[in-house]
Amino acid sequence: MDIIKKIEDIARLDVYREAWAGIPEIILAEGKDSQWITKLLVEMAKRKGMAIATRVNKESVKEIKRKKIKNFRWIHYDKARMIVVVKKNYKIKKINLKVGLISAGTTDIYVAEEARRIMELLGCQVITAYDIGIAGVHRLFIPLKKMLKEKVVCIVVVAGMDGALPTLVKSLVDVPVIGVPTSSGYGYGGQGESALMTMLQSCSPGLLVVNIDNGFGAACAAVLIAKQIKKMIDSSVRSND
Amino acid sequence: MDIIKKIEDIARLDVYREAWAGIPEIILAEGKDSQWITKLLVEMAKRKGMAIATRVNKESVKEIKRKKIKNFRWIHYDKARMIVVVKKNYKIKKINLKVGLISAGTTDIYVAEEARRIMELLGCQVITAYDIGIAGVHRLFIPLKKMLKEKVVCIVVVAGMDGALPTLVKSLVDVPVIGVPTSSGYGYGGQGESALMTMLQSCSPGLLVVNIDNGFGAACAAVLIAKQIKKMIDSSVRSND
Amino acid sequence: MDIIKKIEDIARLDVYREAWAGIPEIILAEGKDSQWITKLLVEMAKRKGMAIATRVNKESVKEIKRKKIKNFRWIHYDKARMIVVVKKNYKIKKINLKVGLISAGTTDIYVAEEARRIMELLGCQVITAYDIGIAGVHRLFIPLKKMLKEKVVCIVVVAGMDGALPTLVKSLVDVPVIGVPTSSGYGYGGQGESALMTMLQSCSPGLLVVNIDNGFGAACAAVLIAKQIKKMIDSSVRSND
Amino acid sequence: MDIIKKIEDIARLDVYREAWAGIPEIILAEGKDSQWITKLLVEMAKRKGMAIATRVNKESVKEIKRKKIKNFRWIHYDKARMIVVVKKNYKIKKINLKVGLISAGTTDIYVAEEARRIMELLGCQVITAYDIGIAGVHRLFIPLKKMLKEKVVCIVVVAGMDGALPTLVKSLVDVPVIGVPTSSGYGYGGQGESALMTMLQSCSPGLLVVNIDNGFGAACAAVLIAKQIKKMIDSSVRSND
Amino acid sequence: MDIIKKIEDIARLDVYREAWAGIPEIILAEGKDSQWITKLLVEMAKRKGMAIATRVNKESVKEIKRKKIKNFRWIHYDKARMIVVVKKNYKIKKINLKVGLISAGTTDIYVAEEARRIMELLGCQVITAYDIGIAGVHRLFIPLKKMLKEKVVCIVVVAGMDGALPTLVKSLVDVPVIGVPTSSGYGYGGQGESALMTMLQSCSPGLLVVNIDNGFGAACAAVLIAKQIKKMIDSSVRSND
Amino acid sequence: MDIIKKIEDIARLDVYREAWAGIPEIILAEGKDSQWITKLLVEMAKRKGMAIATRVNKESVKEIKRKKIKNFRWIHYDKARMIVVVKKNYKIKKINLKVGLISAGTTDIYVAEEARRIMELLGCQVITAYDIGIAGVHRLFIPLKKMLKEKVVCIVVVAGMDGALPTLVKSLVDVPVIGVPTSSGYGYGGQGESALMTMLQSCSPGLLVVNIDNGFGAACAAVLIAKQIKKMIDSSVRSND
Amino acid sequence: MDIIKKIEDIARLDVYREAWAGIPEIILAEGKDSQWITKLLVEMAKRKGMAIATRVNKESVKEIKRKKIKNFRWIHYDKARMIVVVKKNYKIKKINLKVGLISAGTTDIYVAEEARRIMELLGCQVITAYDIGIAGVHRLFIPLKKMLKEKVVCIVVVAGMDGALPTLVKSLVDVPVIGVPTSSGYGYGGQGESALMTMLQSCSPGLLVVNIDNGFGAACAAVLIAKQIKKMIDSSVRSND
Amino acid sequence: MDIIKKIEDIARLDVYREAWAGIPEIILAEGKDSQWITKLLVEMAKRKGMAIATRVNKESVKEIKRKKIKNFRWIHYDKARMIVVVKKNYKIKKINLKVGLISAGTTDIYVAEEARRIMELLGCQVITAYDIGIAGVHRLFIPLKKMLKEKVVCIVVVAGMDGALPTLVKSLVDVPVIGVPTSSGYGYGGQGESALMTMLQSCSPGLLVVNIDNGFGAACAAVLIAKQIKKMIDSSVRSND
Repeated sequence: MDIIKKIEDIARLDVYREAWAGIPEIILAEGKDSQWITKLLVEMAKRKGMAIATRVNKESVKEIKRKKIKNFRWIHYDKARMIVVVKKNYKIKKINLKVGLISAGTTDIYVAEEARRIMELLGCQVITAYDIGIAGVHRLFIPLKKMLKEKVVCIVVVAGMDGALPTLVKSLVDVPVIGVPTSSGYGYGGQGESALMTMLQSCSPGLLVVNIDNGFGAACAAVLIAKQIKKMIDSSVRSND
Repeated sequence: MDIIKKIEDIARLDVYREAWAGIPEIILAEGKDSQWITKLLVEMAKRKGMAIATRVNKESVKEIKRKKIKNFRWIHYDKARMIVVVKKNYKIKKINLKVGLISAGTTDIYVAEEARRIMELLGCQVITAYDIGIAGVHRLFIPLKKMLKEKVVCIVVVAGMDGALPTLVKSLVDVPVIGVPTSSGYGYGGQGESALMTMLQSCSPGLLVVNIDNGFGAACAAVLIAKQIKKMIDSSVRSND
Repeated sequence: MDIIKKIEDIARLDVYREAWAGIPEIILAEGKDSQWITKLLVEMAKRKGMAIATRVNKESVKEIKRKKIKNFRWIHYDKARMIVVVKKNYKIKKINLKVGLISAGTTDIYVAEEARRIMELLGCQVITAYDIGIAGVHRLFIPLKKMLKEKVVCIVVVAGMDGALPTLVKSLVDVPVIGVPTSSGYGYGGQGESALMTMLQSCSPGLLVVNIDNGFGAACAAVLIAKQIKKMIDSSVRSND
Repeated sequence: MDIIKKIEDIARLDVYREAWAGIPEIILAEGKDSQWITKLLVEMAKRKGMAIATRVNKESVKEIKRKKIKNFRWIHYDKARMIVVVKKNYKIKKINLKVGLISAGTTDIYVAEEARRIMELLGCQVITAYDIGIAGVHRLFIPLKKMLKEKVVCIVVVAGMDGALPTLVKSLVDVPVIGVPTSSGYGYGGQGESALMTMLQSCSPGLLVVNIDNGFGAACAAVLIAKQIKKMIDSSVRSND
Repeated sequence: MDIIKKIEDIARLDVYREAWAGIPEIILAEGKDSQWITKLLVEMAKRKGMAIATRVNKESVKEIKRKKIKNFRWIHYDKARMIVVVKKNYKIKKINLKVGLISAGTTDIYVAEEARRIMELLGCQVITAYDIGIAGVHRLFIPLKKMLKEKVVCIVVVAGMDGALPTLVKSLVDVPVIGVPTSSGYGYGGQGESALMTMLQSCSPGLLVVNIDNGFGAACAAVLIAKQIKKMIDSSVRSND
Repeated sequence: MDIIKKIEDIARLDVYREAWAGIPEIILAEGKDSQWITKLLVEMAKRKGMAIATRVNKESVKEIKRKKIKNFRWIHYDKARMIVVVKKNYKIKKINLKVGLISAGTTDIYVAEEARRIMELLGCQVITAYDIGIAGVHRLFIPLKKMLKEKVVCIVVVAGMDGALPTLVKSLVDVPVIGVPTSSGYGYGGQGESALMTMLQSCSPGLLVVNIDNGFGAACAAVLIAKQIKKMIDSSVRSND
Repeated sequence: MDIIKKIEDIARLDVYREAWAGIPEIILAEGKDSQWITKLLVEMAKRKGMAIATRVNKESVKEIKRKKIKNFRWIHYDKARMIVVVKKNYKIKKINLKVGLISAGTTDIYVAEEARRIMELLGCQVITAYDIGIAGVHRLFIPLKKMLKEKVVCIVVVAGMDGALPTLVKSLVDVPVIGVPTSSGYGYGGQGESALMTMLQSCSPGLLVVNIDNGFGAACAAVLIAKQIKKMIDSSVRSND
Repeated sequence: MDIIKKIEDIARLDVYREAWAGIPEIILAEGKDSQWITKLLVEMAKRKGMAIATRVNKESVKEIKRKKIKNFRWIHYDKARMIVVVKKNYKIKKINLKVGLISAGTTDIYVAEEARRIMELLGCQVITAYDIGIAGVHRLFIPLKKMLKEKVVCIVVVAGMDGALPTLVKSLVDVPVIGVPTSSGYGYGGQGESALMTMLQSCSPGLLVVNIDNGFGAACAAVLIAKQIKKMIDSSVRSND
């Protein structure tokens, strides 16, 4: 009685979204059936060459990868909990700009990796520095110096528990910083609430924030900043010619 | 017993902050004595040529303006609730880039004006469109088109109550968008909680957020993005030479 | 020691409720034993010809369907998570009025389907438009136009995450709109809190709201509006004769 | 520096809203300057014949009424905290349908009166029954019977503290019921939180809810239901001719 | 390394508590190991003749009942989620007073049954009326009349979701009423929050409340009221002799 | 336009409530106009001989006392924030039973006094012990012993901040205990939230709770327990004759 | 009717508390009448030589200081919002140990000063460093180094908004650190909630916390640590003799 | 694609932390893969002689213990949910000072044991008293007296539900007290919220608090106090020589 005959029964793919909003439609797998995710990915990939799903659990990954599509291959990013299907000759459009990515603790790596893969798949280069907790703050200075030297367009900082790291980073650099609170931590303020609050209450003016565990959102914002810089450099170069 | 003899008793001015973090120290007047605010502004202005205080109430404005300083003048932005003291020949360092600024309702203007004045004082040009509520969404398209045409580097969107406007804006443009929830609205989700939540839960990937009523923070972030673009255009132009 | 001998031990069926309150008693399966649900459904169906249970999990469905009753048949609505038992010759009393039903994202379909099935079983015709997210708002206009043309008596709008869709719909139509927040979304404001708040804080005056995931409640309200219209048309027609 | 030269500086009037959304633009005075409210009211009234502001405090009322406009007069509804400016020969468009309005306690009257005045100004007839608390539930039956006899299209029920009254009303009638929680009550669940929760958790299926103290929103929804009924009766009568 | 050699390692039994506080020590099984629960029950029963554990899950019940003790027997109350171990010739000390017990919905029965068993095991007679929801309020009057006729010393009312029933009961009787909110209900105010709030905000003065799902606590309070009445009747009778 | 002509415009007095619910209608002054409160008190007093208002602020007291009524006099209880109007020859119906009343800190006295006055006006004798904080717990034992010796029917314990005192009292006595959390305390858990939580989470089984600052509610419950005891003693004595 | 005849009517002074709990009774003025505070201070000072009240507002200070007492003098600490009454020849018992005290922002000074005065009045020496925000973290190292060199027994760190400073301090020193969140900050997590959460979620193990704005509590804890060290040094020295 | 080649991919060990912050790096196992935990423990143990992980679930313990390392052995503390790997000849550096450790209920033992093991492994002696609930407060005095006699440097008090025990302990002793709220308890204020609030709102000045279930943090703080005392005694002894 509830059989899905065609994709329009459950979803409408939005292939024009990238043109409008600068970011292609990416599928949030959470709360969706493996069968649905597969259908959506395949349909999207056929039209665009590549399709991406985030927050895919291990059971779904297994089921999804069973579906074989000619001329396409599956890539599974384990720590990022992402699955990608891509045409064999597909080329990522490079932006040729760098983004910094810092994470505070070992358990924040899942979210950091989600951000990294999205940024790479959408054309940025990513310089990472993981496990730079505020409890060992002396470990922060070397990677930060490197990022500034490499001219990162912005820095994404992933942190759970007290969520203090993005504030500290922002107080030390003059590039845009995006804080991503994570749901690590327990007790009062656990599940990311404390980290989110701290970042929104930051004493370092200009810190930008996305929702808890939303590595995906931070990555999209970083990509938009990079694209905007590229566009303006290109048009400035052109007008200089 | 509690007489303030010198400024070091209550605060340490941080004149080097701009070099580090890209944004000069700006004084949050809220919770501070008029006498303290005046002292801090004067001291800062003497060293830097200009000093800015935000969230100044009307009583404080009156008291502060009574203090006369040679070669300096006070500027009071009523709707922005800001006071500025500036050397008579002081020149703002222009960035020569534009930022879009949209507000949803009449009561959001206070926060929008705070953002506008900060952005202007820190060197950006601002294109505004006020009172563009989601309840009359047809009013959005013309100003948005203008902003894109003027090549804004990013758009700051100020909205209270349901806080839905930044999501809508983000879904229609491919530049970075910063949402500023305001504390308008009453009942459940009033005081900006609903607006903040909506922006953090946004369906439009890449929307960046600051805290409730934090027009100041959004402005700083927009300035940082503009500065970063300028730096990279400059260095790209230089490397092209 | 805790053996259920007769139905009165656990529940009192309310077969007169429809006459009073316009909606028959419908069984909420959540938190109830499969054995109890079966007993309640069978007892109710015998007296009324049809009995409905909502929020039935898959394990319960299997157990319930094992019970065979002469002259009755089971209908399982998978996506709506409902089970219905109905006499073979049972006829739904038609209201002959239409209701619009819009859902925002793929994960909201469960709640939308619950609303749809309840409305259909209680006599309404339903015009659906699914997966109309605010992130791709251009997809909204065609189905909305169709609904208005078909003279829907009201529109039920199901949305999770930022919950902004019902406000947008209400700003574009002059019929009653009922918003149903869903528990999709994660992090701050997840579990439907953000969607509920946004709808209650809506800038579009006149938006009506039910609790998170309460597709059932929205459906009942829509049916009551339809029935009321039918009653008044009928009495108006009669008085015109 | 912040002088309002023309109305476009602070707001854009939306005179076409009624055609779109069924409800004209009404000004929320809360958080707005008396001077702004006056400007907005006068401008709106000149174009539409009548303009309404809600949540006006006593100081603003005094200031607003000082402004004299030829051929217009001010009406101040004290308990409803509303001010209206209306052309001398202005006629309200009658819908000729009735709405029931019940309030639970003496302190809920402010919100109930706001709902009543809005409904009357937008064309409905209102049958009221005030101070019908659940603690003296026997007082409910007579007014309820009267409302049903008078064929109200729906019933708006205003209640604070425990917020149980709308559920009780809904369980006794087969017309749509809209619950309005009020911010009366103190301690845990005070400020309307308890009343709102109770209404959203109602055991009586089909109860519709608006935000705390939002008598205005409930009134708009009731008017939309009435208008919808009128439209459908009219078209049904026409098709019967 | 963590072997429990004797009971003192994990708990100190409090056999004198009944003398002090009027209620014997009863074991909360939740969060405790089956092995610990068994040890505590056996030890307590040996000293007092009877021992009671509440909130025992099905797995623990199985394990606990495996332990055989001479002259004692296990009683498992399934719906009440309780296990009792009692000496074969043990006699409950009767108070010879009655308590009323009302529950609102089918899912509230677990909590109501916990209250009932505790009250019976501590010597009260209990008159029950289950599934008396506010949505079908006409079902309330007959059992209430019976309870008053039987001279119940107080009435315990168990209700989830909107939690309005205890307020209604209290408004109709002049005996003490104890409300027990239950964790049924979903969405905003789910998990018993709404029911608790409503009871604490009750418009019926004198309603007493215990925590969510705390049928045990309500039962203890009812027993204390009954014991107090018995004590005072006894001493009054004695002083009358 | 909003002139109150007769009392029915704003309220319906409920003179029969005492017969039904054991407690006469008492007026909550908070949120009501002085003029309304006076009207309600006078009307009620004329019918019943005495009328009581709680939570009356100082300004209202002054206004109310200006109204002179023949054969009646005003009593103002300052610390209890109550005003009473009473016929000159009015006699309180004595219950002849005692209630214990303990308060934890100096700031809790307002709530304790409200409870005391209500209990006395409704016929109980009250034994008080104020400022018995848990921080000086040795001060608790003497008053507690006295209360038990005087055969109090129950003990009302008023406490703010940590709210631990009722639990301690309950662990030491075998009579019913009613905890009243107060809104003293600041920071996290301030405004009575911590005190309420602690009482609902009490380790001492049988502790009963009312809402924050609800001295009135606790008093009503204590009166109901006392009345119930009196009724049962009387009927027991009668049946013994 | 509510006249305070003697101090026992409102409070019981606890002159032995210092012997038991290591800290003398100190009067929290908040929520108390000026008249009461004066009475309590005078009574306490007469018995102990010195009496202290915290959180005294300016109006109360004026009233209190009007009371002249022979051989005693009033000291008002403005920024600490404290008033002290002390015998003219009174000598503070010195502990001869030092405590570090750091505050993050200018608005945190009120709380820091409360902590400082309490620590000094109870016998500690205090080394302060104010306005050391995390946004200018380079200002932290010099005062920290000094404190360690001076052998502070512990460090009290007062911080509002993001509350990150105590974590940073704890990560750099090996002495006990006590974090005091303050109610500065606005929007989400304002009123100290964010600061409290961050400190409780701290990544630096061993950070101890008190409630929001509770400079008094932190000071008491620091004094207890100092006293404990002094006691143990004294007894160790004695046993070495 | 996501293979961990070397430890630097996921974490940076901080072997110098103990020198800086007084507490060595200890691994929080929660949210980490068994494979990662093992790697981190082994790496740390090789450099420092001992490595500790907390919050290890049973499945991880099994997997971790499978890894055999020459000259090292695994110790599993079941109730403390900790695993330790230690060189065979490793000697704990003794501080030779005692700490008191009290727990309130049987379910608090897990947290108490975590605190105990950490304190012992970092060199303290621990005197325990478990299951000392406030409901049987007479059981508190003997262990407390013993602790004071044994000159404990401070007392850690672990309590869930109402969380009142630390306040009571603090009111009876003059040594520093650290409260640890636990997540036992259900309903409103469950999951440790009530216990945390009560401790932060404590009427006993000087009570220090850590987050819910954070036995580890309390232990670290107690160790830091002990170390500080030892350092100061040693330096005092030296300066006395």
